[in-house]
Amino acid sequence: MAERRRVVVVGGDAAGMSAASHVVRAGRDVEVVVVERGPYTSYSMCGIPYLIAGDVTDPEDLVVRTPEEFRAMGMTVHLRTEAVAVDAAARTVRVRHLESGGERDEPYDALLLATGAHPSVPDVDGLNRHGLAVHTLDEGERVRDLLLPGREAGEPCRVVVIGAGYIGMELAEALVRRGHRAAIVDRSRQVMKTLDDDMAVVVEEVLTDFGVDVRLGVDVRAVREEAGRLAAVVTDRGEVPADVVLVAAGSRPNVGVAVSAGCAVGVTGAVVVDERMRTGVAGIWAAGDCVESLDLVAGLRRNVQLGTHANKQGKIAGIDIVAALDGGRGEATFPGVVGTAVTRVCDWEIGRVGLTLADAAEAGLDVEAVRFTGTARAGYMPDPGTVHVKVLAERGTGRVVGAQLVGTGNVAKRIDVAAVWCQLGVTVQQAQTLDLSYAPPFGGVWDLLQVAARKLAGALDLAPRL
Amino acid sequence: MAERRRVVVVGGDAAGMSAASHVVRAGRDVEVVVVERGPYTSYSMCGIPYLIAGDVTDPEDLVVRTPEEFRAMGMTVHLRTEAVAVDAAARTVRVRHLESGGERDEPYDALLLATGAHPSVPDVDGLNRHGLAVHTLDEGERVRDLLLPGREAGEPCRVVVIGAGYIGMELAEALVRRGHRAAIVDRSRQVMKTLDDDMAVVVEEVLTDFGVDVRLGVDVRAVREEAGRLAAVVTDRGEVPADVVLVAAGSRPNVGVAVSAGCAVGVTGAVVVDERMRTGVAGIWAAGDCVESLDLVAGLRRNVQLGTHANKQGKIAGIDIVAALDGGRGEATFPGVVGTAVTRVCDWEIGRVGLTLADAAEAGLDVEAVRFTGTARAGYMPDPGTVHVKVLAERGTGRVVGAQLVGTGNVAKRIDVAAVWCQLGVTVQQAQTLDLSYAPPFGGVWDLLQVAARKLAGALDLAPRL
Repeated sequence: MAERRRVVVVGGDAAGMSAASHVVRAGRDVEVVVVERGPYTSYSMCGIPYLIAGDVTDPEDLVVRTPEEFRAMGMTVHLRTEAVAVDAAARTVRVRHLESGGERDEPYDALLLATGAHPSVPDVDGLNRHGLAVHTLDEGERVRDLLLPGREAGEPCRVVVIGAGYIGMELAEALVRRGHRAAIVDRSRQVMKTLDDDMAVVVEEVLTDFGVDVRLGVDVRAVREEAGRLAAVVTDRGEVPADVVLVAAGSRPNVGVAVSAGCAVGVTGAVVVDERMRTGVAGIWAAGDCVESLDLVAGLRRNVQLGTHANKQGKIAGIDIVAALDGGRGEATFPGVVGTAVTRVCDWEIGRVGLTLADAAEAGLDVEAVRFTGTARAGYMPDPGTVHVKVLAERGTGRVVGAQLVGTGNVAKRIDVAAVWCQLGVTVQQAQTLDLSYAPPFGGVWDLLQVAARKLAGALDLAPRL
Repeated sequence: MAERRRVVVVGGDAAGMSAASHVVRAGRDVEVVVVERGPYTSYSMCGIPYLIAGDVTDPEDLVVRTPEEFRAMGMTVHLRTEAVAVDAAARTVRVRHLESGGERDEPYDALLLATGAHPSVPDVDGLNRHGLAVHTLDEGERVRDLLLPGREAGEPCRVVVIGAGYIGMELAEALVRRGHRAAIVDRSRQVMKTLDDDMAVVVEEVLTDFGVDVRLGVDVRAVREEAGRLAAVVTDRGEVPADVVLVAAGSRPNVGVAVSAGCAVGVTGAVVVDERMRTGVAGIWAAGDCVESLDLVAGLRRNVQLGTHANKQGKIAGIDIVAALDGGRGEATFPGVVGTAVTRVCDWEIGRVGLTLADAAEAGLDVEAVRFTGTARAGYMPDPGTVHVKVLAERGTGRVVGAQLVGTGNVAKRIDVAAVWCQLGVTVQQAQTLDLSYAPPFGGVWDLLQVAARKLAGALDLAPRL
């Protein structure tokens, strides 16, 4: 009788567990082994700022499925265990238990690397010691516990958040909501580098109005201690007093194990995979935050770290692994991404998709942009609100290549309309006659994205222009 | 010198004024004459329930542009003037001033019929005398004024709304908000016939919970008077006490003038036009609520009365009229509709697009539907809310042919994503890998429409199924 085949999954969050679940559910006679560094499986990283804000009280609520639940499905789950290296010829992955330090080899027929990403900590004296990341659920818990007593004792902490991306902004908002003082520092001259600067200033103003001390174009040089305790973040433009420093300066894909296996890493620093999530090395797949994806608008490859992609890619990898064990190819493929992202900051909704002007220049695309302000509801409704709109289209073809919305209502899921346009190559000519919805509580009779398409048709001298 | 050419527009609301505005702005040496029955031009019919609710206080706020503003643009606007008949051979339209009764002929080179629709009043004894329509702004004002004193005097009116469509529901909600007692009666067994019955029951429950007395499957037989005043609506299942009766039982396209001109009327009862809004009669265009459009999903023609279409069609007619005066054809065309509609009822959002199961049966399409309930925000957020989801796809092709969403948040503009799918022929196979947005305040990591696509791929046995 043939030996039972083994699928080993490194990384127990969205991508890894989507794949592992698919493989066990497929009902083949396969042993599925998951190794995960942390104490949790399959949780919502995006929920961590809401844990710190106090909207979510129990960290367990962020856990989609526990290790026990996965074990009950029929897989083996090793927690606090990390993969160290892969011997692709021998088809084994060396793993180490983080508490005991014990190492062993796990043999595999198929190996999925869903190793995720790790926070980038600026190379600054003392920051490694004092800067707290909030990248994992246990890190989020620790920060939550640290910030809770200060408020309860009536003493707000002075918290400096390094990084003005969406996680940094969500954290700063959460801190202010909990009664702390929050400052954001970032080397960049704008918040959210995924927006054009003229849209980012709107978001910056929202944060400032909410009480966040936003310091942009500022270089962190050191952290200063007093009597062994953190006292301030030292920048090239003065000190920012700090009891706590949170680091939200982006994250880099974890590719060490993939590299040890001989998998190619692209210019993005992430693992190269094909559309079935296969690396170039036989028997090894990769998915989630550690891989690069095709940007369908720009035609470049990007590393986009989002749960939406991780879930889909994990499932697609699982489908292909099952097919490969049967000697075939999976019927699901991952086409790529268009950079869709939304967030909520201080009750404003921010959505973006596709290319910014800077992205377009980098991709060598000749584009035209329109930027205007509309209302979130019909103008005659009480509190019509504000929506800042920016849409980009390619000169010549009229293809919509990007959209950014920042507004007080009816914004977030509306970016998905532009996302579908970007992904399917819809032009501003076509977009104008799409049958989009209208009712006074949700906007005007001309949808704002269609207003943008009309303006762009005019600016690009394309017909028709309604 | 040649005589100055004349464009006559019948109907001064969305379609008519979009066309008239385009023609005057095109800068040709053309005289533009608009005749409008009512006292207003270009106002938001959809805003009338909000006027009655008291959200909008000044009826003028619903007016997008006044007759004076249009006149200042360079056109002639005759109010309280209706078109009676057209002599297409002579190229004249006979108009009558409603106050003086005076008639005259307006000659035209191009005639646009944007005659709109008129409310259907059930053929019931006394209803013509007592039933109030809220189809025009002046009707809305009258109802608002009638219902105001009752509340201020502390005496709620008992109002019966005939018709459980979206306007009837919005009115009933507005009445309850103003402190009146509201009943809805409808012959149909469900509210909103544009939804499947299993979705409509959710909306019915929302209304009932809000305090509206919803009576479905009920036939109105008469209205009963007492001492010359309205006392009750008499139905086949008892009487409903009533001080006021509002009629919101749908509207029928106004085609009398078009018929007098020899324009064809389709099975929908609306004027037949081509994609440039030309009727079959030379020199005559039609647009807005009085025309029928191609249903791009079913391949049938439908009369859809919505401001979104009226605005687009009016503009397209205007573009074609200008081109025709120059001896050519307009470069803009109206492709058709997919039946997108949204409304808000008692803080619930309702969106629908494409075909219901009944529509699909009528169109002869073999479809599969999925129906499930999700959350409006991530499940771990405070108040995650509820969204009822129903999506239909065609067997064999997997093409998405309809979607219905009823929920407490993040619903309305999300229907537009499904609308784009329906209009562009996106399949459930494709839909699963679209890059749609995610953040905890706006939903789960798998967008509900993509969850539906996954379920449908399974139900239809189509690959891939993520």
